[in-house]
Amino acid sequence: MALIVQKYGGTSVGTAERIKNVARRVAKWKMQGHQLVVVVSAMSGETNRLIALANAIQASPDPRELDVMVSTGEQVTIGLLAMALKELGFKARSYTGGQVRILTDNAYNKARILSIDDQAMRADLDNDTIVIVAGFQGVDEQGNLTTLGRGGSDTTGVALAAALKADECQIYTDVDGVYTTDPRIVPEARRLETVTFEEMLEMASLGSKVLQIRSVEFAGKYKVKLRVLSSLGDPGEDEGSGTLITFEEGNPMEQAIISGIAFNRDEAKLTVLGVPDRPGIAYQILGPIAEANIDVDMIIQNVGHDGTTDFSFTVNRGDYARALAILEEVKSHISARAITGDNKICKVSAVGVGMRSHPGIASRMFRTLAEEGINIQMISTSEIKVSVVVDEKYLELAVRVLHKAYDLDKATV
Amino acid sequence: MALIVQKYGGTSVGTAERIKNVARRVAKWKMQGHQLVVVVSAMSGETNRLIALANAIQASPDPRELDVMVSTGEQVTIGLLAMALKELGFKARSYTGGQVRILTDNAYNKARILSIDDQAMRADLDNDTIVIVAGFQGVDEQGNLTTLGRGGSDTTGVALAAALKADECQIYTDVDGVYTTDPRIVPEARRLETVTFEEMLEMASLGSKVLQIRSVEFAGKYKVKLRVLSSLGDPGEDEGSGTLITFEEGNPMEQAIISGIAFNRDEAKLTVLGVPDRPGIAYQILGPIAEANIDVDMIIQNVGHDGTTDFSFTVNRGDYARALAILEEVKSHISARAITGDNKICKVSAVGVGMRSHPGIASRMFRTLAEEGINIQMISTSEIKVSVVVDEKYLELAVRVLHKAYDLDKATV
Repeated sequence: MALIVQKYGGTSVGTAERIKNVARRVAKWKMQGHQLVVVVSAMSGETNRLIALANAIQASPDPRELDVMVSTGEQVTIGLLAMALKELGFKARSYTGGQVRILTDNAYNKARILSIDDQAMRADLDNDTIVIVAGFQGVDEQGNLTTLGRGGSDTTGVALAAALKADECQIYTDVDGVYTTDPRIVPEARRLETVTFEEMLEMASLGSKVLQIRSVEFAGKYKVKLRVLSSLGDPGEDEGSGTLITFEEGNPMEQAIISGIAFNRDEAKLTVLGVPDRPGIAYQILGPIAEANIDVDMIIQNVGHDGTTDFSFTVNRGDYARALAILEEVKSHISARAITGDNKICKVSAVGVGMRSHPGIASRMFRTLAEEGINIQMISTSEIKVSVVVDEKYLELAVRVLHKAYDLDKATV
Repeated sequence: MALIVQKYGGTSVGTAERIKNVARRVAKWKMQGHQLVVVVSAMSGETNRLIALANAIQASPDPRELDVMVSTGEQVTIGLLAMALKELGFKARSYTGGQVRILTDNAYNKARILSIDDQAMRADLDNDTIVIVAGFQGVDEQGNLTTLGRGGSDTTGVALAAALKADECQIYTDVDGVYTTDPRIVPEARRLETVTFEEMLEMASLGSKVLQIRSVEFAGKYKVKLRVLSSLGDPGEDEGSGTLITFEEGNPMEQAIISGIAFNRDEAKLTVLGVPDRPGIAYQILGPIAEANIDVDMIIQNVGHDGTTDFSFTVNRGDYARALAILEEVKSHISARAITGDNKICKVSAVGVGMRSHPGIASRMFRTLAEEGINIQMISTSEIKVSVVVDEKYLELAVRVLHKAYDLDKATV
């Protein structure tokens, strides 16, 4: 008997029929003797419908009140799934984030989980009851409703698995695992049986969209065994083994050098030109950005000349206008010559722990892109990835040629 | 400066535009210097949408999980109205039933309010903040979500007014007051400037649908000044005085004998034939009905003969099948000869405190119906009303001829 946390996303619970399918899948695991905690998202389209309603009232909806509204999406799903399981004859009980007590900070719309009370859930599990928890939400110390931000249901799943010391956290989604890249762009893309935690982290942050980045960080921190599975097939059939996220690196000799090509078109870049090249300038630029709760992805500062330097970074495209306004505000304070930006860019990355022992990975990337006439605007590297920012229009082309350049369409030994 | 509780129903908050209108109306009262607590329902259609979703999963949805789901309707509205008021530059804060702490019993789908914590709301009011509360919902001792049953937002409004000792509770709806009967059936129906609490109680219970019965009982018990107003006009215009529900009877000489003709087509009747005419039989029949949480309206038992008697009562039409099944179960236990029922009936009532001092009110009703060939199936009277059960197909005809028979189309002195 294992304690398993399963998470089902919006597509998996998009209609009453699909919720019944999820119930049958959960029932199958339950009948194998496992204890189950099931985290669900809002029915697909519901969160967008609620946000559109909010936008019809306020162009920039009040963050506290937005969380009050959008957290209802998951609340509807937990009630429906509990009903579907009871209809199948199982004991089930739904919990909102507040009812579990998933305590968060009070950063509305992007709250962070501080603690989880596992007592009520454990009592239910010991009593043979399937526990159903609303993803994406929590409460702060004062009882205000908070949400974890888009995709936060994955984080809820992993956090619950960590709090309950679950044997495995299964993320059910509309793909059957992690691929070498998006099969819609490269039909030859292959499913990876395993992917290391670090690679997954890079893949997620780079927009593979299989898992939310924070949930992978969480899983790594608490050593939660994380598996991505497909919920699209018939619940009675074997769902396969999906992709397991591992925390130990395999023998590099058995691995491809590069595991996959990730990309993200949801980015925008900002550049501060001609700031004095002195200590503290990065903080003076990024401090106000962080205070506005804008997440920064790539950060690049090149060596200066003439006592000044240029400073670039990327943000979510949705934060572009706000970030630009903040820079314009601090511009004179930091003695910058000018502020520029571009929100028609994308980021493409080659990811793989194998590249640590293989020099020349980055140069193969630059050569491949150059051969296609794709200009590189920014470059950023880490031990296990090389990322470039290019014009958005080259995204598909860049992904295709890189997937081929690293032989990702060929099976590994 | 007064403390006013306002309640807006589903039609008043049915679209983003209408919610903005409600915000403008609330703002108008706020700018006159009043403290405001605003109770809102779910956007029209939303509760039905959620119930349909639940029914797609379970024919008889699990009561606890149904409350988890349907309580989201009001939660969306409070967020939107708070946004709309902030957009107008006011301080506003939304509260779910659980956040106020509206404590109820645990009778899911038809919970009763046990207590209301007014501390957080008072702190907000003292801080010049408009308080917005989700109607229809609460939490039980264990933190389970509960709902008060259909129309429960009125009850929330009155209960908050009582708890906060508000100066007035204003129920905004899509009619501009209480009428002598439904103007859709009798175009000559007139708006009443005032109606007594007792009359309103009879009107509400008889299906006038302007106010939920429990809210009127609550208002009477706690002497809450209750006013029905229309939210359909432009928020900038005077909304008139609506209908005030009074707790003292006016001078009967100045009043019409009958205040209005109420009706309810949402009823079904059940009859237990040939039960032994002995003490305790009413309890033996109605005890199991009450235990199943089915509300009983009219109850009629006539004098027996041959040692047996017949026993009839009416229930909500939605509870008809369940009530019938319960009676079949206890049939042999109570030695009944047979159980019969009919769910194609309606109840029509003449209501008015004036009838206390006027004999012959009931006989005028019976004569009027007889002249139209309408057969009376059941009769029930109280000090201020006469109700008859007739075949559903006669409803409109019965209401029209009675409205005329009591001169309700003519203005009073």
